[in-house]
Amino acid sequence: MAERTVGITLLGCGVVGSGVAQILHDQGDLIACRTGLRFDIRHVAVRDPSKHPKDLPLTTDISSAIADPKSEIIVELMGGTTTAASAIEQSLKLGKSVVTANKSLLAARGPELFALARKHDASIAFEASCAGGIPIINALMQGLVANRIDALVGIVNGTCNFILTQMTKHAQSYTDALKGAQAAGYAEADPSMDVQGRDAAQKLAILSSLAFNSLVRESDIHIEGIDTLDAADIKYSGELGYVIKLLAIAHRRGDQLSLRVHPTLVHQDDVLAEVSGSFNAVSLFGSATGHTLFYGRGAGKLPTASAVVSDLIATAMGVTPLAFKQLRIFPDALPPTRLLPIEELTTRFYLRMMIKDEPGVLAQITRVLGTHQISLASFLQHELLDGGAVPIVLTTHSAKEGAMQSALQEINKLPPLMSRPVCLRIIDQPKEFEAV
Amino acid sequence: MAERTVGITLLGCGVVGSGVAQILHDQGDLIACRTGLRFDIRHVAVRDPSKHPKDLPLTTDISSAIADPKSEIIVELMGGTTTAASAIEQSLKLGKSVVTANKSLLAARGPELFALARKHDASIAFEASCAGGIPIINALMQGLVANRIDALVGIVNGTCNFILTQMTKHAQSYTDALKGAQAAGYAEADPSMDVQGRDAAQKLAILSSLAFNSLVRESDIHIEGIDTLDAADIKYSGELGYVIKLLAIAHRRGDQLSLRVHPTLVHQDDVLAEVSGSFNAVSLFGSATGHTLFYGRGAGKLPTASAVVSDLIATAMGVTPLAFKQLRIFPDALPPTRLLPIEELTTRFYLRMMIKDEPGVLAQITRVLGTHQISLASFLQHELLDGGAVPIVLTTHSAKEGAMQSALQEINKLPPLMSRPVCLRIIDQPKEFEAV
Repeated sequence: MAERTVGITLLGCGVVGSGVAQILHDQGDLIACRTGLRFDIRHVAVRDPSKHPKDLPLTTDISSAIADPKSEIIVELMGGTTTAASAIEQSLKLGKSVVTANKSLLAARGPELFALARKHDASIAFEASCAGGIPIINALMQGLVANRIDALVGIVNGTCNFILTQMTKHAQSYTDALKGAQAAGYAEADPSMDVQGRDAAQKLAILSSLAFNSLVRESDIHIEGIDTLDAADIKYSGELGYVIKLLAIAHRRGDQLSLRVHPTLVHQDDVLAEVSGSFNAVSLFGSATGHTLFYGRGAGKLPTASAVVSDLIATAMGVTPLAFKQLRIFPDALPPTRLLPIEELTTRFYLRMMIKDEPGVLAQITRVLGTHQISLASFLQHELLDGGAVPIVLTTHSAKEGAMQSALQEINKLPPLMSRPVCLRIIDQPKEFEAV
Repeated sequence: MAERTVGITLLGCGVVGSGVAQILHDQGDLIACRTGLRFDIRHVAVRDPSKHPKDLPLTTDISSAIADPKSEIIVELMGGTTTAASAIEQSLKLGKSVVTANKSLLAARGPELFALARKHDASIAFEASCAGGIPIINALMQGLVANRIDALVGIVNGTCNFILTQMTKHAQSYTDALKGAQAAGYAEADPSMDVQGRDAAQKLAILSSLAFNSLVRESDIHIEGIDTLDAADIKYSGELGYVIKLLAIAHRRGDQLSLRVHPTLVHQDDVLAEVSGSFNAVSLFGSATGHTLFYGRGAGKLPTASAVVSDLIATAMGVTPLAFKQLRIFPDALPPTRLLPIEELTTRFYLRMMIKDEPGVLAQITRVLGTHQISLASFLQHELLDGGAVPIVLTTHSAKEGAMQSALQEINKLPPLMSRPVCLRIIDQPKEFEAV
């Protein structure tokens, strides 16, 4: 069979962009053999050509690179929400389909860009925006499309997972683990987007919109990062049989969605507990499939580039444009989300309190919890520490978040309390979500 | 937007067929909302209408049910390789695309059916043929299409995994675990296709063909089942830190493929060790993605029906036919496989020998292994059993299968051996396969 050559323009040639060029070079024959397509990189638009390999067709003229009639598909890998947005707009207005990995842009301006694409009979593909090499967008758009999704639980930020894994396996402090992650290239110099949970929340917004047929924005999501996490809680969680992970969680309660990103205790037998280092994993609970899980490298040059190239292929084959035209699961076609307020959330909790060792303290704490309908599931008390503070660690059965917050205010006023209690949430997947 | 009604015919209404009818009924509104499509089941062809719900449009006339001009897509869920084959042929000749879950038929006659589909401008979708609710075919055809696949390692038979889980967690014998699986509906009255590994091999043939661009047939695969497995080896494996799983393994050595289905020792820290009961999981090692893993229910009414309905939707949207026309990864387009002979396989081994407790036995055994270049990795000897037989259990470093078979013949002749040695293979994924 004859091969067809497809001209493309890459906008940006950082880590992912150079990965795309590498895959198209190294696997060009394999891709042609499988798909009949050969991709011709006509332009690579960069800010400073002196910083990139000379054998690429570098240019600083983004607009001309997009407008070239022989560039059929535009691959946006610049990141950011300004130049990237206008470049995508220019492409779509020319009727050219776009492949992007830009989750911040989709989270901020998804609906208008998708509407613009539709207006100009073009498509936007964005597999690379979430969970790197894991084809999770494709699973939601196609593989699990016959399912009402009941819950989505993901480890979607490799930086945080790397840091938490170091803290768990090597008993490092948060500060040391962050330094290690920066040294290993897993965390940026300014790690705030990652460690404060915003990157995970932007991914959750994209995945939830597809999963729940409802437009989820970053601002809909309750976000707590890992930057305030104490190594002691990782240690005590381990003694109770749990591992702490930064989870992005979306689940349905009736017609409302609970959306949250926070450090979460996961049981050591849970598959998610085995997801280590920079790996990502997403659990989906479908009305027909029950529990499914997708695991792989959530970031990095070649895994993310793999997602970009799979989008390129599906776009060039016409498969993505055809699906885009018919599917009504993209942000511009979705109604706003009905949110479950965080106070209404029902979940299990982990509490750690540092107290003065006096008779009757535990009775006082359990009495407060009891008046808020919160009952204990397990309990751990260690011997006296040097400073005279005794850590009391407990887990609860399911309770309302609002009730727990009220209880915590009262507990915080008890005289033996030496500092604010630490309160984390526990997840019991699959038991908690599986309907099958 | 307007809805489009798509007429379909179901051939067969057993477990999966009734699941498809149920999903199209229960999730009809959701599917219409997501895709703009509404499926109208025009005929359900069955052998004995008295055995099925009266509210379905039952018929015994397969040929007319297929020929109905208002039936656009034919869903074959009868199973078997005779009536099902002629029904699919009739459908394709009428230019109607087919959705099937029939792995035996694809394994036996895939290439000719795919060629027939291509000739008549129709498509065959078969997500439901492997791993139930896990969209693994889609991952290979689309999500990971930019990767050279280096290895595929799967737990793809839920019956065997259920039996092995019972044997592992509850120390049951194979016979008791099989009875339990039959009572729970996880094993058929004649379980031979499952427990002898043929079902897993047929799935491996389909998945490997897609993954390695090479036509793999069941007869290319070295197959050992779980029906000869002794509970003692599960126990000793556990003491050494391993779990025994029936794995379907395909991996590349240069331009040759090693293809095998056999009970395998998996380290307790491996994600595959956590795949319990009737769940399935498939690891894929891609040149760009590195290790990815897809996990979910590998069988059952609704999970398998979920895969059928996702194929129905993609076929009705025109996405599957468009991909089918262009992708060259289907059996009719693939060259035959270059096989790595099993003797050439390099792997680690587990050995158990029952010996008479005499001085110098271990020296004799290690001498034989040494002369075949096989070195020990770990060793376990328990105290004397009642019958005077002492179990010696050991694991080896990597060695050639051929060398091990020669060594076993010699060991079997040593006077202290009281029965044939048990020899199982060990897998070290991801370390063994990951190239990234």
